[in-house]
Amino acid sequence: MTTPGFSNTIANSDIATASPRFLASDNTSGICPEAMQYLLRANELDDLAYGNDVWTERAAARFRTLFETDCEIFFVFNGTAANSLALASMCQSYHGVICHQLAHIETDECGGPEFFSNGSKLLPVDSPMGKLTPEGIAGVVTRRNDIHYPRPRVVSITQATEVGTLYSLEELQAIRAVADQYDLRIHMDGARFANACASLDVTPAEMTWKAGVDVLCFSGTKNGLAFGEAIIFFDRDMARDFEYRCKQAGQLASKMRFVSAPWLGLLENNTWLANASHANAMAQRLMKGVSDVEGIDVMFPVQANSVFLEIPPAAQQYLRECGWTFYTFIGEGGVRFVCSWNTSEALIDSLVADLRRALAQRCQQ
Amino acid sequence: MTTPGFSNTIANSDIATASPRFLASDNTSGICPEAMQYLLRANELDDLAYGNDVWTERAAARFRTLFETDCEIFFVFNGTAANSLALASMCQSYHGVICHQLAHIETDECGGPEFFSNGSKLLPVDSPMGKLTPEGIAGVVTRRNDIHYPRPRVVSITQATEVGTLYSLEELQAIRAVADQYDLRIHMDGARFANACASLDVTPAEMTWKAGVDVLCFSGTKNGLAFGEAIIFFDRDMARDFEYRCKQAGQLASKMRFVSAPWLGLLENNTWLANASHANAMAQRLMKGVSDVEGIDVMFPVQANSVFLEIPPAAQQYLRECGWTFYTFIGEGGVRFVCSWNTSEALIDSLVADLRRALAQRCQQ
Amino acid sequence: MTTPGFSNTIANSDIATASPRFLASDNTSGICPEAMQYLLRANELDDLAYGNDVWTERAAARFRTLFETDCEIFFVFNGTAANSLALASMCQSYHGVICHQLAHIETDECGGPEFFSNGSKLLPVDSPMGKLTPEGIAGVVTRRNDIHYPRPRVVSITQATEVGTLYSLEELQAIRAVADQYDLRIHMDGARFANACASLDVTPAEMTWKAGVDVLCFSGTKNGLAFGEAIIFFDRDMARDFEYRCKQAGQLASKMRFVSAPWLGLLENNTWLANASHANAMAQRLMKGVSDVEGIDVMFPVQANSVFLEIPPAAQQYLRECGWTFYTFIGEGGVRFVCSWNTSEALIDSLVADLRRALAQRCQQ
Amino acid sequence: MTTPGFSNTIANSDIATASPRFLASDNTSGICPEAMQYLLRANELDDLAYGNDVWTERAAARFRTLFETDCEIFFVFNGTAANSLALASMCQSYHGVICHQLAHIETDECGGPEFFSNGSKLLPVDSPMGKLTPEGIAGVVTRRNDIHYPRPRVVSITQATEVGTLYSLEELQAIRAVADQYDLRIHMDGARFANACASLDVTPAEMTWKAGVDVLCFSGTKNGLAFGEAIIFFDRDMARDFEYRCKQAGQLASKMRFVSAPWLGLLENNTWLANASHANAMAQRLMKGVSDVEGIDVMFPVQANSVFLEIPPAAQQYLRECGWTFYTFIGEGGVRFVCSWNTSEALIDSLVADLRRALAQRCQQ
Repeated sequence: MTTPGFSNTIANSDIATASPRFLASDNTSGICPEAMQYLLRANELDDLAYGNDVWTERAAARFRTLFETDCEIFFVFNGTAANSLALASMCQSYHGVICHQLAHIETDECGGPEFFSNGSKLLPVDSPMGKLTPEGIAGVVTRRNDIHYPRPRVVSITQATEVGTLYSLEELQAIRAVADQYDLRIHMDGARFANACASLDVTPAEMTWKAGVDVLCFSGTKNGLAFGEAIIFFDRDMARDFEYRCKQAGQLASKMRFVSAPWLGLLENNTWLANASHANAMAQRLMKGVSDVEGIDVMFPVQANSVFLEIPPAAQQYLRECGWTFYTFIGEGGVRFVCSWNTSEALIDSLVADLRRALAQRCQQ
Repeated sequence: MTTPGFSNTIANSDIATASPRFLASDNTSGICPEAMQYLLRANELDDLAYGNDVWTERAAARFRTLFETDCEIFFVFNGTAANSLALASMCQSYHGVICHQLAHIETDECGGPEFFSNGSKLLPVDSPMGKLTPEGIAGVVTRRNDIHYPRPRVVSITQATEVGTLYSLEELQAIRAVADQYDLRIHMDGARFANACASLDVTPAEMTWKAGVDVLCFSGTKNGLAFGEAIIFFDRDMARDFEYRCKQAGQLASKMRFVSAPWLGLLENNTWLANASHANAMAQRLMKGVSDVEGIDVMFPVQANSVFLEIPPAAQQYLRECGWTFYTFIGEGGVRFVCSWNTSEALIDSLVADLRRALAQRCQQ
Repeated sequence: MTTPGFSNTIANSDIATASPRFLASDNTSGICPEAMQYLLRANELDDLAYGNDVWTERAAARFRTLFETDCEIFFVFNGTAANSLALASMCQSYHGVICHQLAHIETDECGGPEFFSNGSKLLPVDSPMGKLTPEGIAGVVTRRNDIHYPRPRVVSITQATEVGTLYSLEELQAIRAVADQYDLRIHMDGARFANACASLDVTPAEMTWKAGVDVLCFSGTKNGLAFGEAIIFFDRDMARDFEYRCKQAGQLASKMRFVSAPWLGLLENNTWLANASHANAMAQRLMKGVSDVEGIDVMFPVQANSVFLEIPPAAQQYLRECGWTFYTFIGEGGVRFVCSWNTSEALIDSLVADLRRALAQRCQQ
Repeated sequence: MTTPGFSNTIANSDIATASPRFLASDNTSGICPEAMQYLLRANELDDLAYGNDVWTERAAARFRTLFETDCEIFFVFNGTAANSLALASMCQSYHGVICHQLAHIETDECGGPEFFSNGSKLLPVDSPMGKLTPEGIAGVVTRRNDIHYPRPRVVSITQATEVGTLYSLEELQAIRAVADQYDLRIHMDGARFANACASLDVTPAEMTWKAGVDVLCFSGTKNGLAFGEAIIFFDRDMARDFEYRCKQAGQLASKMRFVSAPWLGLLENNTWLANASHANAMAQRLMKGVSDVEGIDVMFPVQANSVFLEIPPAAQQYLRECGWTFYTFIGEGGVRFVCSWNTSEALIDSLVADLRRALAQRCQQ
């Protein structure tokens, strides 16, 4: 008996027995209480399918209030679909999407954006801190101007970035300026949008349409839902017929209320912000806990809920033996830890302790 | 403020106040208790993402036991994706998929199969009772044999059909025979697979691979889940790299356990079968309740959980005023009622009473 | 040794010996002298690639003069690509294209339109004489208005139709009116556009943009070229970035001048019109030649260069034995003969004679 | 009046007057006499369409003789289509294609491979001399082994490379070995395959299937045709239904004989080899002519028909003023000259003279 087709990097038998020490990603957490409460409420009565229920309308209205504008909202199942569908609606197959070479759409969607757009090429740029720069964007646009290369049409920004850093409002505005210069649209991958808002203490409106973002993919999954991302169009014309696109692409939930109602749980009482702030705080706690440890280097400024540490292979091995799960950072010798809405101080402290032991061990060698 | 992009056929204000009288589809029901129990259990502890959790492995093993074979199982979010991805893996873009002209993939997926396959043409056939016949299939295959028309490669069967009828095992075997003759693969759209197994009292194995089905899409959503269909390959070679296909197409859930664990709730103690049997029984109750009413014609044999009735427009209008929701059957003057795992006898009896009143009213006119 | 992958309906050995009696299609003819002359001239000097040569600019200018408007012109290799690329630029993957059920894009492109558009569904309509009607178009648009079915966005008209009939200017204008009512764009498949202009004696401008056509695919291949169709956009906005679409889809010729220069041969001195008029006249000659033969029925009015005859199977067999090639008309007992720019009176007369013999023979039986 | 949609880098008025000094690419040349002769012969008689003519069969047979194996041959219009269709048939949308970062499929097809394959990601590798290495290929394959990144399935080799270098038979065999190790198929982009065979003096068979190549795209356009590439499958199973793929993708010529007959002109009397040898010799003549000029650096070994020179901007400007057309090499300060079947010694000598003047001028400054 094998597991159903998924790359299985850890023996399940190990997991079952181990108490969870999952910091590989914020998607190992479950459903937060506020979201679960709404999921249960939405299950009390039958309701209409495909978003014609009472919850979806309320959630959409709540988003419009949160973003202080009459934006258009669509709910899809996951981030691959959210980003890919948004990008496909922003350009044609012969256009290019400028993104950072570490962007998730380039490194971890298995060609999803190319599939949904029927061939739009991602045009990756390298620049420090995992952040695109106006110069980098202009460089890609001006590098070629012939029909043998995809015409750049969209800039995709990840906020917070894949390395846990943040674009300031000024940086976003500078990107908008270069985008205007070259007739580019701006997509924001908000897998950790909540963490960015919480960390910079700016409103969702300031972070998006007021800074020139055209379309935002706002992740609920990483913020405390089971599933469900919100695709938000600030220009309603750009959203024309997008509901058909979602349906055709297998992203229209028949029991939509089980995506939209839990979103109400996040949006009410700013739970989304509280969840993000907690995750950010745990990342700070981890960073501070190891900042004085010799042999551990913090690879990037810790501005959201991810911590990237450069630690020796022997120490990495020690951590694995302690049952910790984490990603090794491709192309670097480092490891990534991501905190979530339910990451406890105790878990962080125990990781810090193990990290100290791991390095101490090493020094004795 | 408008609702987010979905076709809104009923004013939500009405719904909120009305006690639910939803029989338009079995997707207006919620999550059954057995599934909800597992969803809550899966939320107690963090777990690995992308199906590397303990629940997904267990659910897959349970499916293999149920189907009495070492099949390959993949979980996706909804039926559009399940059918479209399965078909895309069974043929190339220049191949054709033979289906009934009432098949959901032809009439209600907004071009999903064509999108996922990058252009495979559906080759619809008309035949009685919503069921394909060997003659109909052979007719499509032999109609053209030139490269200017897509080469038929797959037969897609819906069990139970879109009009609530069933293929007998003998009919399935006859289709397998013609499929073998023309080198065709067989896909089964099992949106109501459970209802078919319950009604015919045959095992999942007998209904599928023992009858020559290559790939089954087994719907959990219509059987009592929030989301989640299982794509089951009986030929493991045909499933090669299918996990990559799911990922690229936005159908790999990061928190997979919230799809797979609830499936355990359905599969344990044959809850899936009990849910289906109840829905079938309610359909029988409705059919019998109106069988003697003058002016109401039962359009198709009621063999699963759907009832199609031919009733006068005035009576339809009366029902709507009573708050009933139902689909009018495209191309016919009829209406469709679909029963679910939680459809109560009281709801059916009240519909029967309203139907009788509706027709009586009419007679007085 | 087999032939390279193509469906081989006639043994090549037969062909080699037989003097050509090809009336199956107007694509069995070669290159007309006026086109060949330009092909040879374009070969005298090297020139820039990808349409930056002197010939392409001249051909484009000539088209603008012919159509009496500053339209945008693109040259592609064949009709499958011309129609599919034009349609893909006129709608998105979740839109529908309304066409006649006999339209070439539906019956003979092997799913090309669905492939290039990544899933746009063709919505075929049946109506007399192979021609769409305003009622038929409205019927498709109003049949469904939900997101589970592709939203109609384009009407595709074939002028001359697949059965050799013609839309009058009045009929085209009536279709434009219904298209305006439902926000539909109009595509014209002009595989035999020249034959239509010649037969109706109307100008290219009257037949297209003045009658509300948005995009025309004008076939050069059937009019006397080796390869090469012109895609003509009357609304330049609709053509935005279309050159990238052509390039990506493998339809940008590096030695473009060998497509565009021969077009100059057709456009100069109205050769395109003379070629078409001749083909039409030969079709009339064939039709008149058999009109009095008992047992032969002319299936459709002969308005362009195609003649559809209902003749008995035995007579069809006789013709084949005489070396005639022709298509049997799918779904009918008839046969199709298509005349070309180089079809001779002698060939037609010899076919008429054989047809008379074939029927006489039969009567003796 | 603008030219029809093509990027127009040179004013056509200039060209018309200037005697052609085109060395930007080998696609500025025309049709060679041997090919033209067959084109004219194929035009003498009508013939069957879609490759059922006498010429296509003969050309296919001739290829089988040339490659000393019963391979499967398909003719398409251009290189973008040949490479993209071949790759699409060798992998699925969620697979990856390993290629050099300078490969034409990566840099100059405007996303064609991604479009035809519906999303297969190109996985570019950098290595010296424009050539892939076994280590580079293994590096890409082993870099990731999870389902979030496309699974490498194909290696695409360009022979001769984009920088005019060649893979030796030993290098090809070493790549086959690593391909076997990781279950990868090998595609050869043979845009300048003839030049490679001529330069290395190896047979087409030795260069392809005997060295482990699965599919070859053999360019006729750059060797002396107007249009037409041959896609050659050495494994007939891999070619299954490929004729449908060509048809659907708009690459099946109705008047196929005008592609296949000219190929006979190239294949008879080894004209293809003579054309390539001449082009190679002209490249050598150019290289030798400037090898002793101070200030000119030859950037890559001149092994085929391309010469890459590093020359000062002022010298480049001087050449342009002399009417020479050439490409500047992206990412380098260099320029590319490509010789063709009809490049004359006089043209090369005059370029050499201008280059010497250009540099001399510069020295005086």
